[in-house]
Formats: sequence, C-alpha cells, structure tokens
Amino acid sequence: MAADVTSSDRHAFVLTISDGVAAGARQDAGGDGVAQRLGELGFIVDRAVVADERAEIEGRLVAAAADHALILTTGGTGLTPRDVTPQATKAVLEYEVPGLSELMRSEGGKSTPHAYLSRSVAGVLTRCLIVNLPGSPRAALESLAAIEPLVRHALDTLAGPFDHDSMAHPDSEQPH
Amino acid sequence: MAADVTSSDRHAFVLTISDGVAAGARQDAGGDGVAQRLGELGFIVDRAVVADERAEIEGRLVAAAADHALILTTGGTGLTPRDVTPQATKAVLEYEVPGLSELMRSEGGKSTPHAYLSRSVAGVLTRCLIVNLPGSPRAALESLAAIEPLVRHALDTLAGPFDHDSMAHPDSEQPH
Amino acid sequence: MAADVTSSDRHAFVLTISDGVAAGARQDAGGDGVAQRLGELGFIVDRAVVADERAEIEGRLVAAAADHALILTTGGTGLTPRDVTPQATKAVLEYEVPGLSELMRSEGGKSTPHAYLSRSVAGVLTRCLIVNLPGSPRAALESLAAIEPLVRHALDTLAGPFDHDSMAHPDSEQPH
Repeated sequence: MAADVTSSDRHAFVLTISDGVAAGARQDAGGDGVAQRLGELGFIVDRAVVADERAEIEGRLVAAAADHALILTTGGTGLTPRDVTPQATKAVLEYEVPGLSELMRSEGGKSTPHAYLSRSVAGVLTRCLIVNLPGSPRAALESLAAIEPLVRHALDTLAGPFDHDSMAHPDSEQPH
Repeated sequence: MAADVTSSDRHAFVLTISDGVAAGARQDAGGDGVAQRLGELGFIVDRAVVADERAEIEGRLVAAAADHALILTTGGTGLTPRDVTPQATKAVLEYEVPGLSELMRSEGGKSTPHAYLSRSVAGVLTRCLIVNLPGSPRAALESLAAIEPLVRHALDTLAGPFDHDSMAHPDSEQPH
Repeated sequence: MAADVTSSDRHAFVLTISDGVAAGARQDAGGDGVAQRLGELGFIVDRAVVADERAEIEGRLVAAAADHALILTTGGTGLTPRDVTPQATKAVLEYEVPGLSELMRSEGGKSTPHAYLSRSVAGVLTRCLIVNLPGSPRAALESLAAIEPLVRHALDTLAGPFDHDSMAHPDSEQPH
C-alpha cells in the first residue's frame, strides 16, 4: 500500500478544458506547456481534453483523481458563462486549499493585473491535489511556477501516513 | 443585441447600503464619491440607497443587474451582525470572482490593516459584474482604484461574444 | 449589558486541535505559545484540547463562543483527511472574515511558502471572532502576529453598539 502510494505520487494528469481544443479548432498550447513542465519536474503525465461542460469536467476529475497524485487543469477559469471549470472543480472537491489560488493570483498580478480575474480553485479529492490553472499558455506556466515550491510538500503530505501531528509540527515546515 | 450589450456596457449602478443614509440621518459621502469616479471613467451612473436588510439588497442587485454592466455597492461589509451586504451579494451571484476582493484587501492593507476586515464579495450575475466596496468614503475610493485596471477588461469579457477560447488565450492578456 | 460585553471582551479561548495532544502523546507547544501571547496582550485565557474530530471541535467552538470574545484554534488546518478544523469552523460560523486568513497566509509566505497550504478559516459566531491558526508553534505565533493589529479593532466592533454607520465611516478607520 505504501509502495502504491509512493508510485502514484509521481503520476500527474493535465486536463485541458476548452471548447476550441476539444473541437479540433485550436492547438492545445496551454496543455502542452504544462505537461512539458511537469515532465521536467519528474512526473509521469497523462492528459485529456474536454469541452467547457460541467458534467464532462467533473467526470474527468473524479476518474483521474483515483490514480493520480496531482491534476492540473488549464482553461475555463475566466469570467464568461462558458467558463465553468471552477464550479466543476468545487463540486467534486472534498475540501479546498484556497492559498494556492491566492498565491497564483498575487504572483500573476505582478506580471499583469488580469491575473486577479482568474477564478481558479484548488483542493483535495481522494488524496489527489487538484489545481485550476488559467487557459493562456503563458499565464498557465506562470501560475504553475508560483506554486511549484509547494506542490512537492503538498503531495508528500497527501501520500501519508496521516499521523498528521508528526507533519503539522515539524521544524522543517518553518525553517525560519 | 450586440448593440444593446455595447450600450449597456457603459451603464453602472451604485448601491449605497446604510441604515443611516436610508433613514436620512447621514450623508451618502461614500456613494457620492464612487458615483463621481465612475462618471470620470465614462460610465452613465444610476444610484439607489437601501437599509442594511438582506431582502432589500438582494432585490436591488437582481433588478439593477438586468440592465447594468457594473454594480458597485458601498457599505455593509464590516463585522457586525447588521453588516449583511456580502451575504446578500453571495446569495444572488451566479459565480464569484474572488481575486477582486483579495486585491482590494491587499492594496487597502498598504494604507491600513483594517482593510483586511472588509468581507467584500465580487462576482457575476446575468453578465453584470457586482463588487462590494467598503462603506468608508476613503476606503471605497481606494478599493475602486485598486480594481480600476481590471474593470474594463472584465466588462469587455462579459459583453461577449462567449467564444471564450478567443478570449482566454489572447497574447494581450499576458503582455509579459 | 454593556458592562458584560466589555468584560467578556477581554476573555479569549485557545482550542488546541490535535490527536497527539489529546492522547497525551505530545506536548501542546502551539497552544502554550498562543495562550502566553494572548496573556501578554491583556486577555484572560481559557483553554481546551480536542482530537481532530469534527463533532468535538464544533461543540467546543459553539460552547466557547457563548462567553468569549475571541477563539483561536491551533492545529488541523493542513492537507490531510485528518485535518478537519476548517470544515468544523465553517460549519459553525455565521459569516466568514476571509481577509484574516488571506493576511496570515501572505505574511507567513514571507517566511516559508508552506504557509500558503494552511486552510485557515476566520469568521464570527454570536459576536465571537474565531480564527484558525496553524498547528506548528512557530507558524501559529507568526500567524497571530500578522493579525494582532486587527484583532482589537475587530473585537471593539463586535462588542457593539451596532449602529454600524457610526463604525463603518469613522475617519479613524482610514488614517491616510
């Protein structure tokens, strides 16, 4: 069991959420960039593309969470009624980790104020960390870069064991 | 239809939420300041005043959202049980845009730590952007100034068309 | 009545949430540090320890809110399924004050990026301010330090009277 967890800990899933990519009318530059970066970080990466449809997104998230330690979505976090990624993500999460989205917005805001319009949600489902990245390829990579220092620690924590007192209080968590 | 949207895109609504102003016992300095600034930004501004009553606030928000592109509320975002603006706003929103409130708090926090006590909520209802500003005239204008660089882009996005792939990925969204 | 409120305004409650401390297997360094600091700030401090069980946490929060102006929890804000403090807190709050948690994460993030993984929630129940601090003793004190400039003003506001127009607009709230 511990071996399984350790093994799946290296498996990530990139879900591109875009009507245009799903219809074949647009290249998946955002998904390509995120998948490449995850590969550089040592992850084995699976991928899928869905249209901006809540039911489809929710189904993909639930299925992928069962055998991946990390899911990064790209797309569908904007302001229009077609942007339903945050709603779909919230609907399947067991609990949110709001600081990841706060950090992506405040770091992204140093490049462009538009970063604050991302409705990104992050949280946990069946020990899998799910994070919404924006759809713009550049914004997606900048958002991923903002949380990279946290992702490994988050996945280590989620891999257990869950004697969380041993994890909530270590000196290593507060180096200063 | 497109012409209607373009036209209504310039219409903003300022909703003052205050027992004191509604009772005529207090001047509406907050609403005056916000309305004046929106006029400077090129908006045609309608206004109303309501007491701190959830049902009244919700009714006003729903009605104004039908024919305005932007609603700014002022007042009722504080800590007391009489402050119900965030609850009323959440109740009518289709979806939240949390980064706007995060940005107003962090920018306001540079002037006074009290800015972090604002329970401001922002989001979208029938393509109308709704944002809660604090009740203090100075804090309301500082909060508005913090999000001004975003409001025009947000309203352009909400005006459609909603082929959001064309909007989620533009280079212009990520100038750097 | 006013005297009662003023009196209870000085009463704070520190709730340590930890399986290990509740079982007697671990020292309550986090609770000790937070209680000591509250004493230095002039509060009369009551304390309790519970395991990471939602029903127990919720019961303690509701009971303590009845006769304390401030409740600080420590522990149970992390990523694992055993960390249920934020869920329990949300379940009992009348309304959230999200800026307090945003501020603790962004200030903590200056020491360690791990601060952004805290799922801390803050808000109000029966005029009592409840704030989740992390379980790490150092992180708990750093988080408390981040919100200290706000806590007194928040408690003064919650102590009433609730003619909130007199409190939402004072010049003293916006010194600049």
